[in-house]
Amino acid sequence: MSVEQEFKQRAAELIEAGRFIHARGWVPATSGNFSARLSDGRIAITVSGRHKGDLRQDDIMLVDEAGHSLDGRRPSAETLLHTTLYRRFPQAGAVLHPHSPSATLLSKWFAGEVVLEDYELLKALEGIDTHTTRVVVPVFGNDQNIPRLALQVDEYMESHNDIFAYIIAGHGFYTWGSTVTDALRHVEALEFLFDLETRLHGAKPR
Amino acid sequence: MSVEQEFKQRAAELIEAGRFIHARGWVPATSGNFSARLSDGRIAITVSGRHKGDLRQDDIMLVDEAGHSLDGRRPSAETLLHTTLYRRFPQAGAVLHPHSPSATLLSKWFAGEVVLEDYELLKALEGIDTHTTRVVVPVFGNDQNIPRLALQVDEYMESHNDIFAYIIAGHGFYTWGSTVTDALRHVEALEFLFDLETRLHGAKPR
Amino acid sequence: MSVEQEFKQRAAELIEAGRFIHARGWVPATSGNFSARLSDGRIAITVSGRHKGDLRQDDIMLVDEAGHSLDGRRPSAETLLHTTLYRRFPQAGAVLHPHSPSATLLSKWFAGEVVLEDYELLKALEGIDTHTTRVVVPVFGNDQNIPRLALQVDEYMESHNDIFAYIIAGHGFYTWGSTVTDALRHVEALEFLFDLETRLHGAKPR
Amino acid sequence: MSVEQEFKQRAAELIEAGRFIHARGWVPATSGNFSARLSDGRIAITVSGRHKGDLRQDDIMLVDEAGHSLDGRRPSAETLLHTTLYRRFPQAGAVLHPHSPSATLLSKWFAGEVVLEDYELLKALEGIDTHTTRVVVPVFGNDQNIPRLALQVDEYMESHNDIFAYIIAGHGFYTWGSTVTDALRHVEALEFLFDLETRLHGAKPR
Repeated sequence: MSVEQEFKQRAAELIEAGRFIHARGWVPATSGNFSARLSDGRIAITVSGRHKGDLRQDDIMLVDEAGHSLDGRRPSAETLLHTTLYRRFPQAGAVLHPHSPSATLLSKWFAGEVVLEDYELLKALEGIDTHTTRVVVPVFGNDQNIPRLALQVDEYMESHNDIFAYIIAGHGFYTWGSTVTDALRHVEALEFLFDLETRLHGAKPR
Repeated sequence: MSVEQEFKQRAAELIEAGRFIHARGWVPATSGNFSARLSDGRIAITVSGRHKGDLRQDDIMLVDEAGHSLDGRRPSAETLLHTTLYRRFPQAGAVLHPHSPSATLLSKWFAGEVVLEDYELLKALEGIDTHTTRVVVPVFGNDQNIPRLALQVDEYMESHNDIFAYIIAGHGFYTWGSTVTDALRHVEALEFLFDLETRLHGAKPR
Repeated sequence: MSVEQEFKQRAAELIEAGRFIHARGWVPATSGNFSARLSDGRIAITVSGRHKGDLRQDDIMLVDEAGHSLDGRRPSAETLLHTTLYRRFPQAGAVLHPHSPSATLLSKWFAGEVVLEDYELLKALEGIDTHTTRVVVPVFGNDQNIPRLALQVDEYMESHNDIFAYIIAGHGFYTWGSTVTDALRHVEALEFLFDLETRLHGAKPR
Repeated sequence: MSVEQEFKQRAAELIEAGRFIHARGWVPATSGNFSARLSDGRIAITVSGRHKGDLRQDDIMLVDEAGHSLDGRRPSAETLLHTTLYRRFPQAGAVLHPHSPSATLLSKWFAGEVVLEDYELLKALEGIDTHTTRVVVPVFGNDQNIPRLALQVDEYMESHNDIFAYIIAGHGFYTWGSTVTDALRHVEALEFLFDLETRLHGAKPR
């Protein structure tokens, strides 16, 4: 497959992921952003400010490994959060950032981290094969200074390289996977678990 | 584009907005009403009593700047709330009034105002560029006397010209934007935030 | 329009109402039943045991004013609740019985009646023109003896002829209107209000 | 009908059931598994790891009564839970295992069993004809050792042969019926009732 074809296929997958994620209410308004890494290291990412439920191929652009635009258009404001993850996880082929109500709500209740335990669905996360796993999802404070936020996330991962996702407070979560399909499975599983946690704790933080 | 064409395009946008809003449960039964301003100052607005999830072009009519019918049909009972907003905000091109469950619920708990803070999604509101903004959404008592209600809203805005929306208690909310797309982005973002607020406060008012 | 044509049209309306109501989760499994009265007094009603989200014309049958089958098939077990309403309300042209989660939940918390007040959406009920109306929805105990239940409902209405709906505890609600469209508007408005009431009262009955 | 045709028909029913169940959020990610018994005793079951909202005929395979693959592919990891049910209930023609949020949530609150009483919708369960029935749904601890879990479930049923479903803690529930349609009716009714129970008990376990 040519890189041109590869770009088109990844773009089609991101468009479909956006439709799926928006239909469930997890990227309201123009929130969220999505990307996929091509085999030559370049990254296909959503253009800034587009509605994720109704993306067209023209809404997906290319940036280099450092997040610089390769076609003159402006990529998502949070591009650096994507490229930092690709550098940290060589096997990552896609990064999805939904802006889900449940992740947002949890971040209002739990500072520092959300812990997921004793759920069969944890097995939907790559490499986990039993519900008796303790998955920690760190919660970082929101910051409009994206380089600073990216640095904070990256420093955390320096000593916690076994995470599957992180939440930005009042903002949503980031997750990734080998392919767009894998990352989307993570989105679906994590959103399910985050929603359960909000219902489990109700209006009362621990 | 002729004014005739402009009317048809705005009507098509309002019809599509209605389908989007109803599918999410935010305009049950025949509640809610929508409008868009044409470049000649006339206002395209939904006819009284129609179901907003299934509008046809025939369900959108024209009124003048004062809200008087220009074609003999009866516009929405709340037309004056629309025209007051257009007069107050010269840049407003569309006004949407969903009858959302979360806005209705919040108005039962919070008299006076709902405060939205520390949400990334506030950036979906026109002109806001950081989550560290404090957005106040005033809550007005419901009133079947629409001229009186419109006056009350307008007097409030005399001293608060920085608002993006207001709630009418037990009734839903009004929001606006430069275009139907902008107003719809406001609807989607505000409904998301109102829903979070209801889940955050649960059954216990502050 | 011939009575034959009238039957077909009413059946089509009930089929569409079923699709609408099921898509929202208000007639799970094979619960619920729907009917419409023809101009000759006969009643088109759903056959017993069909799934309401996927009705075909063959799933709508005819009964007489007393609820007796006119074609040998077995009508809904609750046919008598429909015919009692048609006798009581001469202007009623359709009766819809969704099995909604919110009505069921409210009936677990509130014995006797559910009161709806100060909601703009009350105006979706036929003849109500202000939110300052107090609408009482009686809650009857569930009973597998339908003639006995029908009698109990009818006796209540003898002294309360201004009601728009009633709930059967743990079972769902009945509402009616001049046409299928009117009855469906009542379903949509009442379900919205019942849902708000469950969220308003949360896990704590008054 | 040939066994070949029978397989195709059952597979089509399972595919449609998967679409229905996933659309409602009851089999997130690649969770859940479904099966149907053919008249020759063989069992059509979902292949391990497929997304249940988008199954194709190729995702349904055949196992024998003991759960051994008949075509070399790997069936669902929980195949033994299906075959144990078919052995225990000779009249069962289909087994569905959704991974529903409400069942998962209830299992966090109630150890041992969930009791459903005084719901009209209990009549959607095969053979129940009154709401005054007390239906016990046992809750078993989750276990990655499927033979051990299957044995535990089977031993329980030795003395409780009147159950319609069971929950695995943090994992979802199993239900069955004479046909895929019957099992799906059970899924829809049970999920409705489980959801009501979570709303009824809110964040406070008894």
